[in-house]
Amino acid sequence: MQKYAALLDIVRSKTPLVHQITNYVTVNDCANVTICIGASPVMSHAVEDVKDMIAIADALVLNIGTLDEIQIKGMLEAGKAASKKGIPIIFDPVGAGATSYRTETAALLMKELNISVIKGNAGEIGILAGVDALVRGVDSQKLSGDPVETAKSLALSASCVVVISGADDIVSDGKRVAVISNGDPLMGKISGSGCMASAVCGAFTAVSGHFEGCVAAMAALGIAGEIAAGKSAGPGSFKPAFLDAVCAIDSGAIIKKAKIKEL
Amino acid sequence: MQKYAALLDIVRSKTPLVHQITNYVTVNDCANVTICIGASPVMSHAVEDVKDMIAIADALVLNIGTLDEIQIKGMLEAGKAASKKGIPIIFDPVGAGATSYRTETAALLMKELNISVIKGNAGEIGILAGVDALVRGVDSQKLSGDPVETAKSLALSASCVVVISGADDIVSDGKRVAVISNGDPLMGKISGSGCMASAVCGAFTAVSGHFEGCVAAMAALGIAGEIAAGKSAGPGSFKPAFLDAVCAIDSGAIIKKAKIKEL
Amino acid sequence: MQKYAALLDIVRSKTPLVHQITNYVTVNDCANVTICIGASPVMSHAVEDVKDMIAIADALVLNIGTLDEIQIKGMLEAGKAASKKGIPIIFDPVGAGATSYRTETAALLMKELNISVIKGNAGEIGILAGVDALVRGVDSQKLSGDPVETAKSLALSASCVVVISGADDIVSDGKRVAVISNGDPLMGKISGSGCMASAVCGAFTAVSGHFEGCVAAMAALGIAGEIAAGKSAGPGSFKPAFLDAVCAIDSGAIIKKAKIKEL
Repeated sequence: MQKYAALLDIVRSKTPLVHQITNYVTVNDCANVTICIGASPVMSHAVEDVKDMIAIADALVLNIGTLDEIQIKGMLEAGKAASKKGIPIIFDPVGAGATSYRTETAALLMKELNISVIKGNAGEIGILAGVDALVRGVDSQKLSGDPVETAKSLALSASCVVVISGADDIVSDGKRVAVISNGDPLMGKISGSGCMASAVCGAFTAVSGHFEGCVAAMAALGIAGEIAAGKSAGPGSFKPAFLDAVCAIDSGAIIKKAKIKEL
Repeated sequence: MQKYAALLDIVRSKTPLVHQITNYVTVNDCANVTICIGASPVMSHAVEDVKDMIAIADALVLNIGTLDEIQIKGMLEAGKAASKKGIPIIFDPVGAGATSYRTETAALLMKELNISVIKGNAGEIGILAGVDALVRGVDSQKLSGDPVETAKSLALSASCVVVISGADDIVSDGKRVAVISNGDPLMGKISGSGCMASAVCGAFTAVSGHFEGCVAAMAALGIAGEIAAGKSAGPGSFKPAFLDAVCAIDSGAIIKKAKIKEL
Repeated sequence: MQKYAALLDIVRSKTPLVHQITNYVTVNDCANVTICIGASPVMSHAVEDVKDMIAIADALVLNIGTLDEIQIKGMLEAGKAASKKGIPIIFDPVGAGATSYRTETAALLMKELNISVIKGNAGEIGILAGVDALVRGVDSQKLSGDPVETAKSLALSASCVVVISGADDIVSDGKRVAVISNGDPLMGKISGSGCMASAVCGAFTAVSGHFEGCVAAMAALGIAGEIAAGKSAGPGSFKPAFLDAVCAIDSGAIIKKAKIKEL
């Protein structure tokens, strides 16, 4: 656990700038969780703006939750600049499989950009991996087949780290696999848990290896979710409690509470 | 009350997918309240995306709170697909009467689409009904004339259910009228109460008759508002408490606490 | 203090309509803080919509936090109508200096519009004042040179009131300078503190002199921040507590707690 816990201290000492092009539903949560984990968020989507922003950014998060043509242009421009600069790109394919526009845009971004991490739910990752998956709206969790094999397979074919978020989170770089069993069901009762995870993966991978960074990110958020659930009366009070817990978590809490199994 | 209370259980057992094209001010509240009432939200506005989303959706909510040309195109495309599929369309004419752009867009959407429910405040509904109304920004509540007659009149002329939200909520299909006297003044002190009501009307009408669904939706939210107000120190703490209460409410609470008068 | 405290009562008795064209990250916070201070928010950005909205508005807030071409068009249209009508325009140059697109748009808006108040952090104001400043993303606070002189200098050259938000807030109209030492570090741990300050400056300047209005606004928010910090477990619970405190603050609290030093 020590190595994952140490990454949290590195995030906080370096406060990486995480540039996010994301949906307008959960963007405020993403900004706040980025601050709470110890990094600095900046949101910018205009094609005229993103190249300059990438010049000062340490990671780029692309989230297609409320996709349109303006966003696609901005994502391609920012993503190409990020690929060239060599900073990690975290891709969250929200709703891939639900509509052809999302599925095709996901394919386009994966083809054009040097993506470091793909983080989605089981359905979305299954679609991108070419496995049968049932995606209904943006909350699908259903996947035929073994999620560990699916994660490994997409990680190999896309040459990146794959994160499947769910009751157990799965992280794989194609060879290594980690299963993180932290978290609480209340995380699934608020809009934005998955989007926040992508933002925090951006903060960690900006300062560490991509596999290790994603494992640490998912463990930190899962532990914060457990702490917050104990202080909440429902999904409404869970969100502020969750942000409080993300801000309060330290490397000691990760060492003590992380449930990470490397397969 | 039994019949309205039963609808909540149906929403929760069917978890309808509520597609929302809405403003960026309160969109996060709309997503979260949709989850809390037991349905599933999806936000999508791009003309390239909405038709596929309607194919899997159970209701469509259109809210013109931060309207622009991109949204209008998406609303027309989604609305035509929803009309064809026969799923309910809930229309929230935010700010109709305040600007000609909003008033004219409201007229356009009402002309082109098969709208099932129009939900607004007294001023907005008055404008659409052709009654003298004073709309100032998006929070007007002023209306000359009797709101019950205005609701009935618009319901008849537009062939849909009309919901006027306010201290008392009024629901009419042109023949029947229900007045719901639940709620708390704190609901008027947060941004998004009206938008959330439209989202929840979408969840209920997806699984029930439109008149009954809107009555049940407004009663459930009003009761949740009363419960939350008792646990809040002001508008800031009211919102998380309100979402907690929406999540916790059950059919028993509706039977016990609903103040519904059918005229 | 009396004169600043009295302005809060005037805001609440007049409930000015504050038209905001702002970023989609913190827009919900801006709407809610506007309601809590006692004014009425309306968000509208479409070039087709803004002129009618300005006709009924009492102040205009322009915030370039997530800028794009559609917003620039709307800002110019709204700003010209507001200049002509003579209502205050509050400009928040989020990220000016971080990218040339933001810096150039700030210059364009300052050239074309009759701006009443520029409110930014030290880095942003330094850039617009032509002083060396380091802007990193949207959270820079670094400025070479004396912030009081920088605020005065920009106020004179731009013929407006300048507000630098930070641990101490500085307000200057070029001749007068006030330093407000209220506030709490937790305000810097949430996304949106600065954006909310611009919204509240809009509410106050709509009903008062621009210098006095900005001083009162920053004092009121700083005091609310102190009260909220005492009731919060972290940044997550701070935000609802802050909105509660803004709603609960009265002129007596301002007289008692404001730390305003006029230089």
